[in-house]
Amino acid sequence: MYRTHTCGELNASNINTEVTLAGWVQKSRDKGFIVWIDLRDRYGITQLVFDEERTSKNMLEQAQKLGREFVIQVKGSVIERASKNPNIPTGDIEILVTELRVLNKAKLPPFTIEDKTDGGEDLRMKYRYLDIRRNPVKNSLIFRAKVTQEVRNYLSNEGFIEVETPYLIKSTPEGARDFVVPSRMNEGQFYALPQSPQTFKQLLMVGGMDKYFQIVKCFRDEDLRADRQPEFTQIDCEMAFIEQEDILNAFEGLTRHLLKEVNGVEVDKFPRLLYDDAMRLYGNDKPDIRFGMQFGELNQVTQHKDFGVFNSAELVVGIAVPGGNSYSRKDIDKLIDWVKRPQIGALGMVYCRCNDDGTYKSSVDKFYNPDDLAKWAKITRAKAGDLICVLSGETNKVRAQLSALRMELAERLGLRDPKVFAPLWVIDFPLLELDEETGHYHAMHHPFTSPKPGQIELLDSKPGEVKANAYDLVLNGNEIGGGSIRIHDKKTQAIMLKHLGFTEEEAKAQFGFLMDAFEYGAPPHGGLAFGLDRLVAILGGQETIRDFIAFPKNNSGRDVMIDAPAPIDDEQLEELSLKLNLKDA
Amino acid sequence: MYRTHTCGELNASNINTEVTLAGWVQKSRDKGFIVWIDLRDRYGITQLVFDEERTSKNMLEQAQKLGREFVIQVKGSVIERASKNPNIPTGDIEILVTELRVLNKAKLPPFTIEDKTDGGEDLRMKYRYLDIRRNPVKNSLIFRAKVTQEVRNYLSNEGFIEVETPYLIKSTPEGARDFVVPSRMNEGQFYALPQSPQTFKQLLMVGGMDKYFQIVKCFRDEDLRADRQPEFTQIDCEMAFIEQEDILNAFEGLTRHLLKEVNGVEVDKFPRLLYDDAMRLYGNDKPDIRFGMQFGELNQVTQHKDFGVFNSAELVVGIAVPGGNSYSRKDIDKLIDWVKRPQIGALGMVYCRCNDDGTYKSSVDKFYNPDDLAKWAKITRAKAGDLICVLSGETNKVRAQLSALRMELAERLGLRDPKVFAPLWVIDFPLLELDEETGHYHAMHHPFTSPKPGQIELLDSKPGEVKANAYDLVLNGNEIGGGSIRIHDKKTQAIMLKHLGFTEEEAKAQFGFLMDAFEYGAPPHGGLAFGLDRLVAILGGQETIRDFIAFPKNNSGRDVMIDAPAPIDDEQLEELSLKLNLKDA
Repeated sequence: MYRTHTCGELNASNINTEVTLAGWVQKSRDKGFIVWIDLRDRYGITQLVFDEERTSKNMLEQAQKLGREFVIQVKGSVIERASKNPNIPTGDIEILVTELRVLNKAKLPPFTIEDKTDGGEDLRMKYRYLDIRRNPVKNSLIFRAKVTQEVRNYLSNEGFIEVETPYLIKSTPEGARDFVVPSRMNEGQFYALPQSPQTFKQLLMVGGMDKYFQIVKCFRDEDLRADRQPEFTQIDCEMAFIEQEDILNAFEGLTRHLLKEVNGVEVDKFPRLLYDDAMRLYGNDKPDIRFGMQFGELNQVTQHKDFGVFNSAELVVGIAVPGGNSYSRKDIDKLIDWVKRPQIGALGMVYCRCNDDGTYKSSVDKFYNPDDLAKWAKITRAKAGDLICVLSGETNKVRAQLSALRMELAERLGLRDPKVFAPLWVIDFPLLELDEETGHYHAMHHPFTSPKPGQIELLDSKPGEVKANAYDLVLNGNEIGGGSIRIHDKKTQAIMLKHLGFTEEEAKAQFGFLMDAFEYGAPPHGGLAFGLDRLVAILGGQETIRDFIAFPKNNSGRDVMIDAPAPIDDEQLEELSLKLNLKDA
Repeated sequence: MYRTHTCGELNASNINTEVTLAGWVQKSRDKGFIVWIDLRDRYGITQLVFDEERTSKNMLEQAQKLGREFVIQVKGSVIERASKNPNIPTGDIEILVTELRVLNKAKLPPFTIEDKTDGGEDLRMKYRYLDIRRNPVKNSLIFRAKVTQEVRNYLSNEGFIEVETPYLIKSTPEGARDFVVPSRMNEGQFYALPQSPQTFKQLLMVGGMDKYFQIVKCFRDEDLRADRQPEFTQIDCEMAFIEQEDILNAFEGLTRHLLKEVNGVEVDKFPRLLYDDAMRLYGNDKPDIRFGMQFGELNQVTQHKDFGVFNSAELVVGIAVPGGNSYSRKDIDKLIDWVKRPQIGALGMVYCRCNDDGTYKSSVDKFYNPDDLAKWAKITRAKAGDLICVLSGETNKVRAQLSALRMELAERLGLRDPKVFAPLWVIDFPLLELDEETGHYHAMHHPFTSPKPGQIELLDSKPGEVKANAYDLVLNGNEIGGGSIRIHDKKTQAIMLKHLGFTEEEAKAQFGFLMDAFEYGAPPHGGLAFGLDRLVAILGGQETIRDFIAFPKNNSGRDVMIDAPAPIDDEQLEELSLKLNLKDA
C-alpha cells in the first residue's frame, strides 16, 4: 500500500499516528541541519520534517537531494508543528519522517507548479499534465465533474433516461462543417461525426422514450477561435408530450438546482423576455441582466430638430451610465474613440450629462433644448449624476454597437460580478434568418424547429417575421442553452425544408428517414441543449472555457500535443486514396 | 399541458379523478356499441372506454377510427373496471373518455409493437424507433441508464473524478484500426478517433488526478461481427499510488455494488485465478465458473499404453460431464460430430462412461484397463453416472476445443443460468503474445503494461514467459474488464517498445509525449477498463449486446439507417482530395 492517508487530511487529532504518505515535492526549505518539505497530492499539502537529531543524518542528506516535483513516499509520525500555518487544513501538524523512498525523479518543470504560475499559455498547453497539477486547473476539472454529476442526478430523479446515440453517423451533403470519417470496412463510404444528436433524440421521442438526456461530445470542423473548440460537450435533452411551458419549467429547474448545489445560490423564477424585446432593450439576444442600463429609443424625441444625423437614422438609441456625469471631457473623448474602433464600428457618439442640479449638458445643445434632453433622460431612465450615451444609424448595427458599449461600461463599473447569477429565458425567436450575403433565408435554430401556431402561412409572404417555438436560456450575458418545440409531422417538415431551399429529392435524401418516422405515430416533442463547456465556466466564475477542459485543442501546441492532428504519411495517403476510389481517376 | 398522469400510474385510489392522458393506441376492441382502447406510453398501459351511453355517439365513432400506434390525447374520469386485469398495475381501472384528440396518425407499423414481435432483426433495425417502443428494448435502454448511473454514483462516492478526454486525437502510424478524420482547417492533416483514452488517462495520473474515470465511446475500424460494434462504450478507470491489490479491490467493489443495486444479488469475495491455471483448468482465459467441469490433464496416465494418438499428443485432457452416462451411443456420436465441426476442429473424441455400478466403459478399452480409467475418473473428478470426454493434440488447440465443448455441454445441461453471477479475477497474464503468422511478439494487453518485478531481464531470453501486472475481470465466461499496472518510467517504457519492434525513432514519434511526461514526476499508476456494452448485457441477463444499444450498427440496415456510412459524393470527393493534396499528384 502506497499511502495510509492523503496529503489533505491529517490534523491535530492525528498526532502520534504512524502514517505513510505519497506525493510530489512542492517545495523544500533546507537550513542545513533541518529540512522541511511540502508534500503535495490532489487533496492538499502536508509538511514533512527531516533533521539531524530526530531522524538520521543519512535521511537528512537524502531529503536535501530531493528536487521539485520528485515523487516520493514517506513513513513517519504525525507531530505538532512549532510554527503553525492557519491557512491550510494540515497546518497544525507535520510528519517526522522515518523512511523515505523516491518513487520517481523529476526534471525541473518548465514553469512553476503554483496557483499563480510563471508559465505562459503555450507552455502550459504543451505540458498540460503539469498544468493540471496546479490548483486552479485541477479544481476546475473537479468542478466540471461535480456539475455533470449534479446534472445527471437531477435529470435522473426527474425521470429522464440517459441514452447514448451514435458518433459515427450518416454523412449528409449539407453538412459543410461535418468531420467526415472514411470507413475502412466499407470502401468508398464515409461516416460523419455528429454536430449534435438532434435527429437521434427526435427518433427516441418517436420511439416513446419521452424524457431523454445525454451528456455528449459534438463536433464541428471549424477553425479554432478563442473560446470555440472543434469538439465540445452538450447536455442534450428532449421531451415528448410537452408544450414550451413544460420545457422551460423542466430546465429552469435543472439550472436552479445547479446554482443551488454547485454555487450555493438561490435564484427567483427566471424572467422571460421576447426576442424582439431583448433586441429592443439590450440590442442583443443574450442580454446580461445582472445590471440595468436598458436601451431607450429616442427617435420620436430627436426627429425634426435640424440634427441631420439623427433625422436620417433608422434608430436613435441611448443608455444611461450610472454616475457617468463624473467622467471628464477626456474620459468621454476616450469613450467616443472606443465606440469608433473598427471592432465596434460606430461613426460617433452623442452624449448628455445629467447634472446633479437637474440641468442637462449635451454634445448637441445646438439642436436640443433642456426639455428635449429631459425627455431623453426619462426614456433612458437617467438620473441626476448619470451620463446618457446615444448612438444612431441602421437598427441592427447600432443595436450591436450600443450593446457592446453597454457591456464595456458595465465591466468598467464592476457590474459584471461573476459571483452574481442572473438567468433569463429569451423566447419567440424568429424562425428564419436572412443570410445577407446570399439573400436566402436559413433556419435560425435548425430545420426541425416548429413555427408558432398559425404562422406557417406567413412563410411565403413575410418569411422574416415568422416566429418560432424557440427559446434560449441566457446566464450573465451568455447563451448557455437553446432549444425549440419540433415539427412532428411530415407535411410541416416538408414545407419547412422547401422554404429552406431543399428540393423534394434533397429533402428526402437527407431527412427522409426522420420524415418517414413521423408517419408512424410521432408525439409532439421538443427539447433543449446546454453548452456544457460554457455553462461550467460561468458557474465556475470564469470567462474562459479552457481551464475546464482537461486537454483543450490549442493552435500553438499543435505539433507537440497528442490531441493535435498529424500529417498524413504515404501509407495512409495510399490507403485513403484507395478508399476514395481516386486511384482509378 | 398534454397529460396530468402517465399511463402507468392510475389505480383504484384514483377513481373519480378527472385526468388527461396521452400516448399510443396499443390495441382496440370494438364491440359496436362499446370500444376499449389500450393506451400506451413509456410507463405502462391504461384502458380507455368509449360507449354510446356514457360517452357521445360521435366520440364512439371517432374511437372506432383510431388505428394502432395513433398518438392520442384523452380527457376523462377514472372509473372502476368491470373485469379487472390483475397482471398490470392499472388493471383495476379504466378511463371513461369525455374528450378525444388525435395528436398524430400512424401508418400500420411493419411489425407488431409487442414483447414478442413478428418482426425479424433486419426490419426491427430499419425501424429502430418502432422497435424501441417495445418493452424488451425500452427496458434494456432504461436498464443501461441505471447501470451507468450506479457506476457514476459509486465511483464518485469513492473519490473518482470523471474527466472528459479528447475524441479527436493525434493519429499514430501503428494505429492500423484507427478511424482517421481529415481536418478541414488543417490541410493535409488528420485526427484519429481513440481506441481508448489510454495515454490521456496516464497523463492525468502524471497530472496528479489520482482517481479518474470516464464512461466514454471508443472506436475501432473493424468489420461488424455478431457482437462487435465499431463504436463501443468503456468505463475507463485509472488510479495512482496504488498496487494491483488496490485496483482489484476498488473494481471488485464497483462490480459488487452493481450486482447488488441492479440485480439484487450479493456475491462473495471474487476468486482469483492465475492465467496459467485458467488455461490449464478451463482452457480459456475467461472461464465460466458458474459450473465446475474443470479440465483434468491425462498425459501421465495415458502414455505408454500403445494408443498412438495419445502417445504423440502434446496434451491429453478430459472433462467429466455430469450425468453424461445417460447419453445414448447416438448422442455421443453426435457429440463427436460436434467437436469435429470445422469451427471446433478436433480430430476426434475419446470417451469413457462411468457406470452407476462403479465400472467404466470407454471407446479405447483396447488400450486402457479399468484401473487406468479409474485414474481418468479421479483426475477429471468424474462420478458414477458421468461421461468423461477426452481430447488430445497440440496444447493451445486442444484447450480451445475442450473449452468449447465444456461450454456447449454446460449450455445443454442448463448450467449457464443468466440469473446466477460468478465473477472472477484472472491475474498474471503473459506480457507478450506470439503472433504465429509473423513470428513476432506483441503486447498482450498494450505496450504500457508493466512486467512483473524482476522479470524484465527475461525479455531477451524467454519473452513468452514474462508475466505482466495485468488482470481481467471475468463474469459468467465473459471478459467484462481488463487492466494493468502501467510502466511509469521512461527507461522501462523504452525497453518495452524496443522489444515490441519499435526503433528508437518510431518509439519517440509515437510515444515520445508520454515518455517525456514520465520524466516530470510520474507516480506509480494502473487501471482498468470495463466494456460497458457487454457488462450491461450480462447484468441484464442477455447474450446479445444489441438490445442495450439504442442505435446499433447493423450490416443489413446499412442503406437505410441514419447511422450508416454514406457513399461520398463528387463535391466531398473533390474537397477531400484537395485535403489529401492529391490534386497536385
